[in-house]
Amino acid sequence: MSLLVVGSVALDSIETPFASHKDVLGGSASFFSVVASALTPVRMVAVVGDDFPEEHVDFFRQREVDVEGLQRVEGRTFRWSGRYHENMVDRDTLDTQLNVFQDFKPVLPDAYRESEYIFLANIDPKLQLQVLEQVRNPKFVACDTMNFWLQGETLESFRKVLASTHAVFVNDEEARLLSGEHNLVKAAAAIRKMGVERVIVKRGDAGAQLHDDDGIFIAPAFPLEGVADPTGAGDSFAGGFVSYIANRGRLDGATLRQAMVFGTATASFSVEAFSLDRFKTLDLPQVLDRCAKYGELVRFDPISL
Amino acid sequence: MSLLVVGSVALDSIETPFASHKDVLGGSASFFSVVASALTPVRMVAVVGDDFPEEHVDFFRQREVDVEGLQRVEGRTFRWSGRYHENMVDRDTLDTQLNVFQDFKPVLPDAYRESEYIFLANIDPKLQLQVLEQVRNPKFVACDTMNFWLQGETLESFRKVLASTHAVFVNDEEARLLSGEHNLVKAAAAIRKMGVERVIVKRGDAGAQLHDDDGIFIAPAFPLEGVADPTGAGDSFAGGFVSYIANRGRLDGATLRQAMVFGTATASFSVEAFSLDRFKTLDLPQVLDRCAKYGELVRFDPISL
Repeated sequence: MSLLVVGSVALDSIETPFASHKDVLGGSASFFSVVASALTPVRMVAVVGDDFPEEHVDFFRQREVDVEGLQRVEGRTFRWSGRYHENMVDRDTLDTQLNVFQDFKPVLPDAYRESEYIFLANIDPKLQLQVLEQVRNPKFVACDTMNFWLQGETLESFRKVLASTHAVFVNDEEARLLSGEHNLVKAAAAIRKMGVERVIVKRGDAGAQLHDDDGIFIAPAFPLEGVADPTGAGDSFAGGFVSYIANRGRLDGATLRQAMVFGTATASFSVEAFSLDRFKTLDLPQVLDRCAKYGELVRFDPISL
Repeated sequence: MSLLVVGSVALDSIETPFASHKDVLGGSASFFSVVASALTPVRMVAVVGDDFPEEHVDFFRQREVDVEGLQRVEGRTFRWSGRYHENMVDRDTLDTQLNVFQDFKPVLPDAYRESEYIFLANIDPKLQLQVLEQVRNPKFVACDTMNFWLQGETLESFRKVLASTHAVFVNDEEARLLSGEHNLVKAAAAIRKMGVERVIVKRGDAGAQLHDDDGIFIAPAFPLEGVADPTGAGDSFAGGFVSYIANRGRLDGATLRQAMVFGTATASFSVEAFSLDRFKTLDLPQVLDRCAKYGELVRFDPISL
């Protein structure tokens, strides 16, 4: 059950109505791998610059994330800065500096090519395709994307990615953009017709929906008394989801639904602190406890009249 | 199990990106009573003008809604017109003509004073208080409101209503306004401290949450392939919710959760057609079938690792 993630490692500067932090650890591969490593060994392919603090690499290593595929090159690390609105859901991107990420070429160390589970985080679909060409016989591939790629040439590439993956994560807007359907049920059905068996629609604080052969499964977000920083919630969700599947080694509908719940619980911890801070103290029993509480949130007896 | 509703009966003019309809039957008391009458006898207190089509009153009667409390006075019926955005959730009010509703005084026919279950739809809280003064010994009172009332003198009155009711329906914005808390978990807790045991937060297409002594219950919205007209969804939800409780004659937590699901199923039918049209063909087995399907949407096996 070897799990490979290819994505970004970044330094984020984040403002919320309540606090702000500069140059904290961020990036899709960071969130995904730290989360997923709780359930399964993770291999990371990403790039950082020579300014990237060694303590973050140590943190990955402590979580037993294999960083052989983490390239360190001359230049500055990818930086993103954003400001959250008062609702702690909507945000404005203030600045994006691709820096060393601009010329990122995902090169898989030999050992990584046999990875059974793959997560292609939100990067240029052309790079996602390069990863798929390097892996030998994956059991389960999931991919993420963003609105920026869903047009022109990169959209063509992403459609090829879709046809080679088993699950795709999209938010409402991306689902609509990709499918041309406003209604999310129709949008998910249209995306499934593009060749991907499972569509997971992420709806922020409204939770997520899994669309697969079993129909629709809805996982509302775990209600929290406070959200410190929503950054990385989607990648934490994906990390919980894919690592649960890798851990169980099963792809049946029941396991997929459990993976949705595990991902939801994981994402709910992610937003409780800035950056990846919450994961520094989080342990598996806490996540399982929240999964059990989650069951109570949606449980009801059959309707009888 | 006598159920009394006091609210508005209106003629709505509605535009969506896909269609528009002029002067169709609307109003909180209309949606609530037609929905609720499927499970329990309903008594309606509202007012219409002399222009109100008799066919609508016949429709209420066919549904065995007691219209003795439906006042008919000289003048024009309350009119509302609105336009929905492309997301079919947000809307702009284009025009509100209170007309005969301006001088509405809820007067309960004698027989209504013994009603056991009461729904105070969104009207001036001072009128809601007048209703409470007229009923003798209700078993369960639920109320709705809107942002407009949650300030100044009417807010004072609404706080008195809250202290005399067993459940309140609020949307996100109203919950925040009423409590001064942005976070919905904190907002619901603060509202419960105002004297109302159960807070139901309606979140549009994200569903609804029940906050009570048992904790939080989340009912995501039923996913639909098409929404024709969201108007009245909240009152249909309330109609399903309160009538389920009246039908069962129980107020325990398990029944309340079932009522949330029954209300969610009912609301999902409401939005499938303009005005109250969907209820002209809907029967109880269809609603129960959707409740069963709903169970499948949120069902998952316990997480095991």
